[in-house]
Amino acid sequence: MKIGVCKLAMASPNDVSELERLIDSREIDPAEIVAVIGKTEGNGGANDFTRGFATLSYQLLLASRLGTSPAEIGKRIAFVWSGGTEGVLSPHATVFTRSAGADAADGPRLALGIEGTREIRPEEVGTMAQVHEVAAAVRRCLVQAGITDPKDVHYVQVKGPLLTPASIADADQRGKTLVTRDPNGSKPFARGATALGVALALGEVSEADLSNDAIARRFDLFSSVASTSAGGELKNCEVLLFGNSSTATSDFRIGHGVLKDTIDADGICATLRNAGLSFSGNLSNEEARRIAAIFAKADASPNGKIRGRRTTMLSDADINYERHARAALGAVIASITSDPAIFVSGGTEHQCGPGAMPIAAIVRV
Amino acid sequence: MKIGVCKLAMASPNDVSELERLIDSREIDPAEIVAVIGKTEGNGGANDFTRGFATLSYQLLLASRLGTSPAEIGKRIAFVWSGGTEGVLSPHATVFTRSAGADAADGPRLALGIEGTREIRPEEVGTMAQVHEVAAAVRRCLVQAGITDPKDVHYVQVKGPLLTPASIADADQRGKTLVTRDPNGSKPFARGATALGVALALGEVSEADLSNDAIARRFDLFSSVASTSAGGELKNCEVLLFGNSSTATSDFRIGHGVLKDTIDADGICATLRNAGLSFSGNLSNEEARRIAAIFAKADASPNGKIRGRRTTMLSDADINYERHARAALGAVIASITSDPAIFVSGGTEHQCGPGAMPIAAIVRV
Amino acid sequence: MKIGVCKLAMASPNDVSELERLIDSREIDPAEIVAVIGKTEGNGGANDFTRGFATLSYQLLLASRLGTSPAEIGKRIAFVWSGGTEGVLSPHATVFTRSAGADAADGPRLALGIEGTREIRPEEVGTMAQVHEVAAAVRRCLVQAGITDPKDVHYVQVKGPLLTPASIADADQRGKTLVTRDPNGSKPFARGATALGVALALGEVSEADLSNDAIARRFDLFSSVASTSAGGELKNCEVLLFGNSSTATSDFRIGHGVLKDTIDADGICATLRNAGLSFSGNLSNEEARRIAAIFAKADASPNGKIRGRRTTMLSDADINYERHARAALGAVIASITSDPAIFVSGGTEHQCGPGAMPIAAIVRV
Amino acid sequence: MKIGVCKLAMASPNDVSELERLIDSREIDPAEIVAVIGKTEGNGGANDFTRGFATLSYQLLLASRLGTSPAEIGKRIAFVWSGGTEGVLSPHATVFTRSAGADAADGPRLALGIEGTREIRPEEVGTMAQVHEVAAAVRRCLVQAGITDPKDVHYVQVKGPLLTPASIADADQRGKTLVTRDPNGSKPFARGATALGVALALGEVSEADLSNDAIARRFDLFSSVASTSAGGELKNCEVLLFGNSSTATSDFRIGHGVLKDTIDADGICATLRNAGLSFSGNLSNEEARRIAAIFAKADASPNGKIRGRRTTMLSDADINYERHARAALGAVIASITSDPAIFVSGGTEHQCGPGAMPIAAIVRV
Repeated sequence: MKIGVCKLAMASPNDVSELERLIDSREIDPAEIVAVIGKTEGNGGANDFTRGFATLSYQLLLASRLGTSPAEIGKRIAFVWSGGTEGVLSPHATVFTRSAGADAADGPRLALGIEGTREIRPEEVGTMAQVHEVAAAVRRCLVQAGITDPKDVHYVQVKGPLLTPASIADADQRGKTLVTRDPNGSKPFARGATALGVALALGEVSEADLSNDAIARRFDLFSSVASTSAGGELKNCEVLLFGNSSTATSDFRIGHGVLKDTIDADGICATLRNAGLSFSGNLSNEEARRIAAIFAKADASPNGKIRGRRTTMLSDADINYERHARAALGAVIASITSDPAIFVSGGTEHQCGPGAMPIAAIVRV
Repeated sequence: MKIGVCKLAMASPNDVSELERLIDSREIDPAEIVAVIGKTEGNGGANDFTRGFATLSYQLLLASRLGTSPAEIGKRIAFVWSGGTEGVLSPHATVFTRSAGADAADGPRLALGIEGTREIRPEEVGTMAQVHEVAAAVRRCLVQAGITDPKDVHYVQVKGPLLTPASIADADQRGKTLVTRDPNGSKPFARGATALGVALALGEVSEADLSNDAIARRFDLFSSVASTSAGGELKNCEVLLFGNSSTATSDFRIGHGVLKDTIDADGICATLRNAGLSFSGNLSNEEARRIAAIFAKADASPNGKIRGRRTTMLSDADINYERHARAALGAVIASITSDPAIFVSGGTEHQCGPGAMPIAAIVRV
Repeated sequence: MKIGVCKLAMASPNDVSELERLIDSREIDPAEIVAVIGKTEGNGGANDFTRGFATLSYQLLLASRLGTSPAEIGKRIAFVWSGGTEGVLSPHATVFTRSAGADAADGPRLALGIEGTREIRPEEVGTMAQVHEVAAAVRRCLVQAGITDPKDVHYVQVKGPLLTPASIADADQRGKTLVTRDPNGSKPFARGATALGVALALGEVSEADLSNDAIARRFDLFSSVASTSAGGELKNCEVLLFGNSSTATSDFRIGHGVLKDTIDADGICATLRNAGLSFSGNLSNEEARRIAAIFAKADASPNGKIRGRRTTMLSDADINYERHARAALGAVIASITSDPAIFVSGGTEHQCGPGAMPIAAIVRV
Repeated sequence: MKIGVCKLAMASPNDVSELERLIDSREIDPAEIVAVIGKTEGNGGANDFTRGFATLSYQLLLASRLGTSPAEIGKRIAFVWSGGTEGVLSPHATVFTRSAGADAADGPRLALGIEGTREIRPEEVGTMAQVHEVAAAVRRCLVQAGITDPKDVHYVQVKGPLLTPASIADADQRGKTLVTRDPNGSKPFARGATALGVALALGEVSEADLSNDAIARRFDLFSSVASTSAGGELKNCEVLLFGNSSTATSDFRIGHGVLKDTIDADGICATLRNAGLSFSGNLSNEEARRIAAIFAKADASPNGKIRGRRTTMLSDADINYERHARAALGAVIASITSDPAIFVSGGTEHQCGPGAMPIAAIVRV
């Protein structure tokens, strides 16, 4: 398996011109595309439609180039968008391709498994039913990626549904109980359940500790490599598992780390080194250019404090705390790598311990 | 002259308990306080009343301790607040004291001059009338601070009025023309005019190049040490000029720098070195603790791009670009110094060249 | 008892000039002031400090005129502010005075009882402990107001604490459990518990039906005359009970109604008639001028729909649903009364049935 | 000419299911659709992409049903969206069809002319070049609609480009000057120029009074029937002219009015009567059901005051004044008509006199 990684700038949520150009110039074979992960410039909340707009726009382009329908592209390619480009964050898409890749590599290389769950019903969002569906999908991903040791897994991106006014109405009609009736408030449950699904599949938590009551509450249970999001445009969960496999022949390697807060520059540097960059002091321009993609989660610390100082993220009624956190972490990462086109998404329920945040970097070998 | 510098955490805009405690423990003599510069947790816009609330709260405390009225404290002490603690920024106040300071120092030390202008009428906001009043106040500050060479000036904080619905109505009644009728839109003019006042007094621009039309338009004219803000609670301009003087005997020294963008970690490090810290690679905890205060301006780049990547600051109708910029720069500075209680304020019209931003650091000797 | 009612415009949260003028002209005797209810121009959320700023500003004025301290004024006078002047809502304060009032009236007239609870601890916010404290205060208010039949009660305003980062930290330190850890999310619990306290005292619900689990959940339990709010600046609950009493000799009468949604013009007109205005079709200017004050609650309907049409209040991540609801209802009321200085506050948990909203009007006899 | 009018609810910006259903049930012939005017649930600002998403979604549906491309649909059908469903406003689309319509009617009936201008270059946005292009298109619309007397014109909807970061960059590259460099700030100029184009074509202003300097400044020049908007997704202006023509045989008639402020209930009732409803006092349910569509503009009054009371629309840095104004007017209209699916868009530059706002109603005969 050979995984290709290509970062594309976007001038708006429906700007697919960079991919168009790369297909035209034969730098990317559209038939090999398996996943698109990106940031769009919406508010990142329940009424952020930039994600759906971007998906539809890429689907239309690829459907036209591959002679099929947008719906078919939707089944074939996983689209994961995080809304909200606060601070310096730059709207972009990272396109992943997968091909046979004949040549052998001289060590473990980037591998990727992609699996979806069945549709998650509104009443299952944020419950053990969702945990189990995600765990099963993660296990299928491991097989697909050719990874046997969970230690070789560095990043598991899961995107699943949140509750929307429409799905709440649907559950009401069928007399079903929901974990919450607040669309924006359903995100912690939705993200938490999918993260625990990853943790369960990778042996980071034991099934005995899990229950509906633990979700979005027992934050001592977590995965260190999960990055989960929830959006109104999805009905099932999509799992993208990234790791290094000796059966892969990609030009890339992936590493990960854990950030202790949103200004943890040392943690960012350690992650880059874990992925294979070597530097002390400042990152050189040459090494920085080897970074293909960075994926990080940003969150407020549980008590709102950073390094002993009070921040106002958690009490701000104008700007959601996720937006504050993304703005901060995105800027710190970009100050090290010189590239603001980073995937930083909000909400870390059950992703690392309370206050900590997962980060992964893909680096050209 | 001996200048004292003390940073106080604030749990809300009206929390003056830290100053109360320091007065009670005789660590600060309230009679020596000459200025308070801080961040409050409002939105930073025309309807941000946290600044006025903080001023009133400190005035009440000091009036009670000094046996005088809040209004008298207002005349005696300069209060400069910047609203908006986006990202990790932490609400705080830095209190400056000034005393005779008998002992001689072994080199130039922190000096401070404070002067106010007469009341600026609404029709003068953003015009040459304001430029000239500020320039005159800056010249008086130089004398007061014992600084003869403009090169020894590192930071000139000016706060002046913006246009408010009330001041617009007042001008209308008197038949006067304004630079704009939009309260939030008057900030660039207000900040620009005061910055050009600083530049004029320090010889950074020549009078011949200045005119009403140049204000908030000819951005090739600027001061490299001015940091100006505008708030609805002020009617005159207050100038606080910081530099190093051989006649001062403070325990502090000040330095400054210019940031090329909001993620310019190198520029921040250079500023800390300019102020007297010595380090290569990461700042040690010991050196970091020597930092008494950092004052920086944050802004979007003119074309919205950072290191070639598009940001969405300038087109965001939900969150003002100043808030994005403050969130980014605040986080990057804190990632280096480990302290989110930084004065980062928005809007750099005529403060450094287009896209660049001034920053100053006060460091314990 | 004679209750005076006077509405004052405010140019900013700290503008007390209208009250100053009325005291100077002897139209209001500051010693007779017992309550101030008003709207301030903040965001209405957990970080809205305009309420505290307004309280401090009025306390300072009254302390100076009455030769006492702001803290003493705080004990003597109840201040109730609702932040958020969305749409056309106009910042203002309605000042209530109470005096002996020698002359007998020709029927029931406006009466007012004001009582506070003890301090509500963070762990009690949103629990039965708060319900009982409020119910006891309501009963004391009835006695004070000279009202024996609960049917004569038309409006009970309760303001109490919400959870703040500081109070959450305090509870954590003492090992106490909270109903939620989200400051903005604590408002439904805080408002719900105080509303149920009113309902309990007025016999609208039976004690047997109440429990911690019912609060902010069993919305079939409610008071039709309660209007409750929660703010970070309060530690105890303040109850202001308004009704008509035959022992009162005020120039005013109060009436109330129930709105079926935020555009219920008929419900508004019915309320005005209940308070004593007589009109069919449009309200005449003469009758409109008899309206001294209107107090209403605004909320999104539970499913977000109004008259069968979907609104986007509940899924909007930029603007809180309370702000949408206040904007809508405030405009509809003002379109009938021609006065945008109305007290419209958000959140109707246990105040009227689901989707319905309480409204009261005070009218000059 | 026979014009059909059909209002469709939308569950999200890409929900075209109602139109799909009506096409399937043959209630609407997709080949007859000439225009779609609607509200989407974005923020209404420069970064509101819900408008483009809705357009693309309808284009895809219609392209599939008509066997053509989305681009072709874009040329054939005018799409006009206003973003921002504040308060109770409900996302929806009103679809207009045009067919031959054989039968003669017993009086003037709804007629519609639709014309586009050539592409407006960034440097032309907000200038006389745009005024002239729009005026020419309006004149072509009159011919198309079979209207000779401008008095029979009741509503002219124009949508054109605003400045975006991309178009500003384009102008910079070609060395062109713009009316402003602020994307959100370009809306007043863009809307103003197109409104003056309407006024010029309908003889409401004389060419001699017009100049670049008059645009967004001389507000005594205006059209009483223009309703103009600006969005980043457009490059040319689209003009939709509605009036009554004796050559039309539609089942509808249109009327218009002028609102003196955002709470002008009398003005709304007068408009409904002008369109053909007859009622005194409250509108009956039967008459209300005859209303097919309402189009209104909402704006803050120039001094921010409504009926002598200060509102905070113009100084609010969190919520744009257009959003406040739309929330208010939308609720007042819905309180009269019982239908929150109303087209209320913001910004009235040169549309009615300062503070006044145009409104039109289409009513079933």
